[in-house]
Amino acid sequence: MVTKHEIQKLIPLASRKNAGEDSVIQIKNLAIGKSPIIIAGPCAVESEKQMECIASFLHDHSVPILRGGAFKPRTSPYSFQGLQEEGLKILKKVSNKYNLITVSEAVDESSLELVANYCDIIQIGTRNMFNYQLLKKLGGYSNPILLKRGMSATIEEFLTAAEYIMASGNKNVVLCERGIRTFETYTRNTMDLNAVAAIRELTHLPIIVDPSHGTGRKSLVLPLSKAAIAVGGQGIMVEVHNNPSEALSDGAQSLDLSSFKNLLLELKT
Amino acid sequence: MVTKHEIQKLIPLASRKNAGEDSVIQIKNLAIGKSPIIIAGPCAVESEKQMECIASFLHDHSVPILRGGAFKPRTSPYSFQGLQEEGLKILKKVSNKYNLITVSEAVDESSLELVANYCDIIQIGTRNMFNYQLLKKLGGYSNPILLKRGMSATIEEFLTAAEYIMASGNKNVVLCERGIRTFETYTRNTMDLNAVAAIRELTHLPIIVDPSHGTGRKSLVLPLSKAAIAVGGQGIMVEVHNNPSEALSDGAQSLDLSSFKNLLLELKT
Amino acid sequence: MVTKHEIQKLIPLASRKNAGEDSVIQIKNLAIGKSPIIIAGPCAVESEKQMECIASFLHDHSVPILRGGAFKPRTSPYSFQGLQEEGLKILKKVSNKYNLITVSEAVDESSLELVANYCDIIQIGTRNMFNYQLLKKLGGYSNPILLKRGMSATIEEFLTAAEYIMASGNKNVVLCERGIRTFETYTRNTMDLNAVAAIRELTHLPIIVDPSHGTGRKSLVLPLSKAAIAVGGQGIMVEVHNNPSEALSDGAQSLDLSSFKNLLLELKT
Amino acid sequence: MVTKHEIQKLIPLASRKNAGEDSVIQIKNLAIGKSPIIIAGPCAVESEKQMECIASFLHDHSVPILRGGAFKPRTSPYSFQGLQEEGLKILKKVSNKYNLITVSEAVDESSLELVANYCDIIQIGTRNMFNYQLLKKLGGYSNPILLKRGMSATIEEFLTAAEYIMASGNKNVVLCERGIRTFETYTRNTMDLNAVAAIRELTHLPIIVDPSHGTGRKSLVLPLSKAAIAVGGQGIMVEVHNNPSEALSDGAQSLDLSSFKNLLLELKT
Repeated sequence: MVTKHEIQKLIPLASRKNAGEDSVIQIKNLAIGKSPIIIAGPCAVESEKQMECIASFLHDHSVPILRGGAFKPRTSPYSFQGLQEEGLKILKKVSNKYNLITVSEAVDESSLELVANYCDIIQIGTRNMFNYQLLKKLGGYSNPILLKRGMSATIEEFLTAAEYIMASGNKNVVLCERGIRTFETYTRNTMDLNAVAAIRELTHLPIIVDPSHGTGRKSLVLPLSKAAIAVGGQGIMVEVHNNPSEALSDGAQSLDLSSFKNLLLELKT
Repeated sequence: MVTKHEIQKLIPLASRKNAGEDSVIQIKNLAIGKSPIIIAGPCAVESEKQMECIASFLHDHSVPILRGGAFKPRTSPYSFQGLQEEGLKILKKVSNKYNLITVSEAVDESSLELVANYCDIIQIGTRNMFNYQLLKKLGGYSNPILLKRGMSATIEEFLTAAEYIMASGNKNVVLCERGIRTFETYTRNTMDLNAVAAIRELTHLPIIVDPSHGTGRKSLVLPLSKAAIAVGGQGIMVEVHNNPSEALSDGAQSLDLSSFKNLLLELKT
Repeated sequence: MVTKHEIQKLIPLASRKNAGEDSVIQIKNLAIGKSPIIIAGPCAVESEKQMECIASFLHDHSVPILRGGAFKPRTSPYSFQGLQEEGLKILKKVSNKYNLITVSEAVDESSLELVANYCDIIQIGTRNMFNYQLLKKLGGYSNPILLKRGMSATIEEFLTAAEYIMASGNKNVVLCERGIRTFETYTRNTMDLNAVAAIRELTHLPIIVDPSHGTGRKSLVLPLSKAAIAVGGQGIMVEVHNNPSEALSDGAQSLDLSSFKNLLLELKT
Repeated sequence: MVTKHEIQKLIPLASRKNAGEDSVIQIKNLAIGKSPIIIAGPCAVESEKQMECIASFLHDHSVPILRGGAFKPRTSPYSFQGLQEEGLKILKKVSNKYNLITVSEAVDESSLELVANYCDIIQIGTRNMFNYQLLKKLGGYSNPILLKRGMSATIEEFLTAAEYIMASGNKNVVLCERGIRTFETYTRNTMDLNAVAAIRELTHLPIIVDPSHGTGRKSLVLPLSKAAIAVGGQGIMVEVHNNPSEALSDGAQSLDLSSFKNLLLELKT
C-alpha cells in the first residue's frame, strides 16, 4: 500500500500537510468547503424550456448551483454531442433570471474559453482528468474548477491532476468523486467513499460527490447522497431532469423533480 | 447492467419481493435489522488477558457483540492460524462474564461444529463465500449466520450465497459488506456502499458493514462507519484491539480502545 | 509493486529459487511440465452417452486427459449441481475403455475422497482456491492436484495456495490460470497471460491455461490457446461438448467436436 | 455480456462486418496489418547521443520503426515532461540517417501539428484515448494514427474511439493493446490478449501490442511478445534503451540492447 507521506510529497500545493485548514472556495455568496452544498441539473442542456423548468425549481428550493452540459463527450461519435455555445447561452440566461451559480464541462481549449465566459465554474470531466495539457491551461482562468475523478484514476493520480491545475496558477480546485470502474455490473460504477475520507486527510481541497454517475440508478441516489455527506463530502452533484424518460442522456440515473424534492427534504433531516 | 428483476428471480427466499418487511433477527435481547448494532473485537483471539480487556471495555460501553477469530484463514500456510478450540473457550468465558453475544468464523465442517457450540453467531468469511458446500451445511444449525461478501463477488453472487444458506434451512442470515478488490492501492479494499443500498432494495435480509477490512486504515474507520449507517446499513463490525501495534494480525486497521471510544461517541451524535 | 523476492520468501516449497529445474509431474505415461499437454471434455458429466462420444473422440485424436465435472459449484442453489458419484463412475468407465487420464473437481472432504478414488487428478476449482481447509486435506492423497486460480486471486495468493498443498505433503501441484475478474464485459473473464510468464519465473511448478473460462467465448478459444503455449504455458484445458447448444452448463464457451479438431490441427502447426 | 452485434452497430467504419478483409496500412515500404512488425525505442527522447545509439541498432537489426516520446504526459507536474520540439528534431535527424519510420505521441492540438510534421505516425496515448476532441482533430492529418487503449477502456470504448478518428476523416488507424488496470500488483498492468483476439473479429483495423507497458517488467517482455503474435497481433511495440538504469522514465520495463537483440532472435524462430 502507498503511504500518506508518499502521496503528500507529490502534491506540495494540494497537500494538507503544507496548508492545515480546509480550503474554502467562495463563489458569489456561496462558500464551497464549509456546510454541504448541492449542485443539480440535467446531464445535457437540451432546450430553454427544459432549463427554465429546472432552474425555476432549483430557485424555489434554494439549491444554489445549476449544472448542464453543453459539450458532451459521448462514447459514440454519432451520439448527440451537446448544444455547445447555444447551450451555454441558455444556461447563462436562466441562471441570470433565477440567480443561480452555474457549472458546465469544458473539453478542449476552445470550449474552455466559452465555458469560462458563460459560466461560473469550469468542470473537467472524468474522460479528461488525465488530459494534462487541458489541466495546464486552467491556470489562465480565475473561475473555480470542478475536477472529476478519472474512471480508473487512483487517489494519487486524482490528486496529482489537481496539482497540475494548481501548479498552472489556479488554486480554486474542487474535487468530485464520481465512482470508479470495477467488476460489478448491477451499478454503473462503484462509488468510492473511502477515497472521499482519504482525500479529506491528504489534502485541504474541498471534495464533493456525484451519486448519479457513481451508481447509475436513480433509486440509489438518495442513500448514497446521505452517505456522501456522512463520510465528510462537502457537497453533492445530482442529475435532475424535468422528464427523465425523455432525457437525451443519462435518463436512468436522473431524478425527476419530485424525487429530487424528496432528496432535499431527506438531506435536511 | 443486470436488472433488479433478474437478480430477484434467482433468490426466492432472500428476495424482498416475496417478503416485504425487513427481516429482524433476534439474538437474546438484541434485534439485528432494526436500529444499528455494533460488533467489535480483535481480528484474532490471542489470549485470555487480551479478550478480558476488550470484553470488559465493550461491556462498559454497551457494545453488545464481541467478535474474535479462532480459525484464521491466512494467506501463508506458515502464518499464525488461530488458537482454534482454545480460542473459542476464551471467547465463551469472557462473553459469559460480561454478558456479550459472540461471533466467530467457521472455515470447515469441524470448526463449524465447534463455533456453533461455543458462539452465538457463526461467521462465514470472505474466502468461503463461494464455498457452497460449507454454506449448505449451515442448515443444520440454528445459530444466526454472518455472511461476509467475497472479495470479488458481485451483488448477485453475494445474494445467491445467502440463498444457499436459506435453502439449506437456516433463514437467519445477516449480510456483511467488507470491501471489494479494485485497482486502488491506497486502501486495502474499496468499500462498496452502493451494494449496501442496492441490497436493501433487493432483499429483506439485514446487512451490516465492516469498515476495518473495507478500508484497511484505522483513520478511515470512523468516517466510513458514519457513511455505512447513513446509507442504510443496519450495523457495523469494527476491529478493536487493546494493543494494535502488537496484534498478531490486521494491526494497521485495528482501533485502539481510546479511538474506539471516540467512534462510539461520534456515532451517537 | 511487489518484488520477486517478497513472493519467493512466502513459498519455500513452490519457489523456483529453491528448486532450479522445472517440476515434471508424471501420470501413467504422461509427463506434465515438458511438452504442452491438452485436457479436454465437458463442463459437467451429463450422461454415459455424452462421455462415451467425447472420450472416443479424444482417444482417436490422441488427447490424453479427459475432464468432466461431477460436483459443480453453481451460482444458484437451484441449478443442476452435477451427477456426483454417478458422474465419477461414468468418467471412470469411459476413461478405462479409451485409456484416458481423468481429472474432476472436488469441493469438500467427502467429494475429495470420491474424486481421489475414481480419478487420476483432483481439481480444485476457482471458488475453492481460498478454501485453505480443503487445500490442507490434499496432503492425504497421492493424486496430482490441478489448482485453478481464484477469480480475483493475486499471483502471490495463487502461489501461497499451492504452498498450502505442498506444505500439507502433496508436492504434485499443477497450476491453472483461468482468467481474472475485470471491468471488461465483452469477455467472461480477462485471461492473465502475464501471470503465466511471471509464475514460470517465480516457481518450478507446471502451469497450464484454461482459455474456455478465460474468455467465455468459443471463437476466442483457439487464438488464446496459441497464446497460452507461446507465453510458456505447459498445456491447455479446453471445454469440449458433443452438443454445446444443449450443454447443461457453459455452452457458450464450449467447442463442438469439429471446432476442437480444428484447434488440435492448428496447435500442431 | 455485450454481443458482437451490439458493438459492431456502433462502429460502421471500423467494423469488420462492413469491410471483410483486414486493413493494411502502408507507410513508405512497410505494410502494417500483414506480417508482424516491430516498433522499438525509448520511452522518452533524452538526447541525440541516446537516439543515435538506438537508431543505429535498429537499422543494423532491420527493425523498421523507431519510437520516442517528445511530449510526455507524466503523473506529476514536476516530473520531466519531454524535450518537446527539440526531441522531435532529434527523432527526425536520426531516422533520416538510418532510414527509419518514426512514431511519437501528440497530446494536444499544438503538439499534434508538430508531431505530424516531424514524424510518420502520430501516437495517441492511453491517457488521451477518451479525449474525443483530440481524436476529432486527427481527420485533418494524413499520417497513420497509433491509438493506444485507455487504461480502463472497454473493448467497445476502444473501438468507438477508433471510430471517432475514422469519422473525422482519417482511416489509417492502428490499434495498440497496452494492458489494463486490475487488482494485480506484481505486474504494472494486465495485458489483455483476449481483447486482441476479440478485436481481430470485430474490426478490420490492425492491432499491435505493447508488452512493455502491459507488464511493467523487462523479464516478461519476451514471453508476452511471443504470445501477442501467437494470438493474432500484427506487431509489437517495445521499450528499448541503451542504458535502462539511467532512463528518465520507464527504466524498469525497458530492454537493453542485448536483451532486445535476443528478443528479435527468439521471435524469428
